[in-house]
Amino acid sequence: MTKNRYENGEIMKLRRSERMVVISNYLINNPYKLTSLNTFAEKYEAAKSSISEDIAIIKKAFEESGIGEIETVTGASGGVIFTPGISDEEAKAVIEELRDRLSESNRILPGGYIYLSDLLSTPKILQSVGRIIANAFKGNKIDAVMTVATKGVPLANAVANILNVPFVIVRRDLKITEGSTVSVNYASGSSDRIEKMFLSKRSLKPNSRVLIVDDFLKGGGTISGMVSLLKEFDSTLVGVAVFAENAQEKRDRMTYKSLLKVSEIDVKNNHVKVEIGNIFD
Amino acid sequence: MTKNRYENGEIMKLRRSERMVVISNYLINNPYKLTSLNTFAEKYEAAKSSISEDIAIIKKAFEESGIGEIETVTGASGGVIFTPGISDEEAKAVIEELRDRLSESNRILPGGYIYLSDLLSTPKILQSVGRIIANAFKGNKIDAVMTVATKGVPLANAVANILNVPFVIVRRDLKITEGSTVSVNYASGSSDRIEKMFLSKRSLKPNSRVLIVDDFLKGGGTISGMVSLLKEFDSTLVGVAVFAENAQEKRDRMTYKSLLKVSEIDVKNNHVKVEIGNIFD
Repeated sequence: MTKNRYENGEIMKLRRSERMVVISNYLINNPYKLTSLNTFAEKYEAAKSSISEDIAIIKKAFEESGIGEIETVTGASGGVIFTPGISDEEAKAVIEELRDRLSESNRILPGGYIYLSDLLSTPKILQSVGRIIANAFKGNKIDAVMTVATKGVPLANAVANILNVPFVIVRRDLKITEGSTVSVNYASGSSDRIEKMFLSKRSLKPNSRVLIVDDFLKGGGTISGMVSLLKEFDSTLVGVAVFAENAQEKRDRMTYKSLLKVSEIDVKNNHVKVEIGNIFD
Repeated sequence: MTKNRYENGEIMKLRRSERMVVISNYLINNPYKLTSLNTFAEKYEAAKSSISEDIAIIKKAFEESGIGEIETVTGASGGVIFTPGISDEEAKAVIEELRDRLSESNRILPGGYIYLSDLLSTPKILQSVGRIIANAFKGNKIDAVMTVATKGVPLANAVANILNVPFVIVRRDLKITEGSTVSVNYASGSSDRIEKMFLSKRSLKPNSRVLIVDDFLKGGGTISGMVSLLKEFDSTLVGVAVFAENAQEKRDRMTYKSLLKVSEIDVKNNHVKVEIGNIFD
């Protein structure tokens, strides 16, 4: 969005190098969005052929440096689409660092829980994790990202930022500010209690293709609950991604991708063992 | 992050135009971070003087198109810092569009509430709102963004993304996954009930300078509660920003910036009147 150059009715006229910087910024901030070359040509008062050359250079730079891919769609309604990416090497480096941080012994909480909130509230980490999860589902059409309040929200937000689609927040309590809701029952974690989760009726369009994300996978009851909700909204599950899974937990067979796997929590000796999840399998 | 070009030990060597695209991407993704020119010079195997020229062009393009400012810090520990910005014109256009969307009569919920969740779960909107709020507090040192679960989380996340600082989530319920918490009492909204809010002890460092954000300001009790929490953490309030305020609500004198002001909710006639908030005052 560089509208401000239109102040005083003036049309933006930039040197090629400046134009490339501004077009790069536009693409980075508008992932998965088809933009016609004419839009750029009009905005920056340049020939379509010049814009086309700019895009070719940006494409090369983006692809060689792992920023992402630029696809050109030909035809009358054509244009360019930027798909953010991440190289396996960079993704691995990020996950290895997260594994080391998750292995810190001072994260163990009474009850065998692990403190994650600091990681999931740091923009730089969320951004990388968002890119890794979005990249793992590349090629799938996704209309929305779903999660459950509260801990999953920043993660869903991060993935939705990259995919440029809305995110949908399922709640465990009823809030008047949500309007009409649909509810389903689900089996809550280890305790085998049956609880309810709610989704605002207007928060998800019917026939949506949905990616579910969550911070920590234990028994899988929460995920199953969200999958039931999808049916109530005539929507389809594209996949499930979690930041970390507890490998010691028994759960029904389900397909998901995890960034990290907690394979051992020894509260007595204050030791936690964390491995890379199945996301690279 | 373009580490992947180091694959096979190779050092990145790009044409100037490509290098500018990649450096722009780096700066956009690392706001408020000081990066030395040597870092770029080593990464892209270019002379420091060439990098300096690249930065000058990027700076010009960023500033002319309202993307933000690039500041050069001289000296041994010097480098460049990118501060994202937004022009008044673009900010106004965004807020005007939000005002129109908030004025839609189908947002009125029983009890005089307004449905906001769709707006606060759309990445493109959140990104613009984050830039507007961050820009309104430009020049202030901010170490963290604080909000209350659940509705404020995406907003805090968006502002924190721009400021490149962590966000801190205050809860109205106690969760075992948060570890030790500090709690304060606060007066909950219209009903004059006294309730409790909790913040995990490890989520905020002492002596932090904190920006509080929330989605909807009614009586101000929640904000006052968060301000009390700041004292418990020996931290300082930098300011308060809300997405929308209810102008009909009586509240104690407090200083805040609002993007939107709901001046009338007429549930009977299904009419809501929304104006631009005080953020441009």
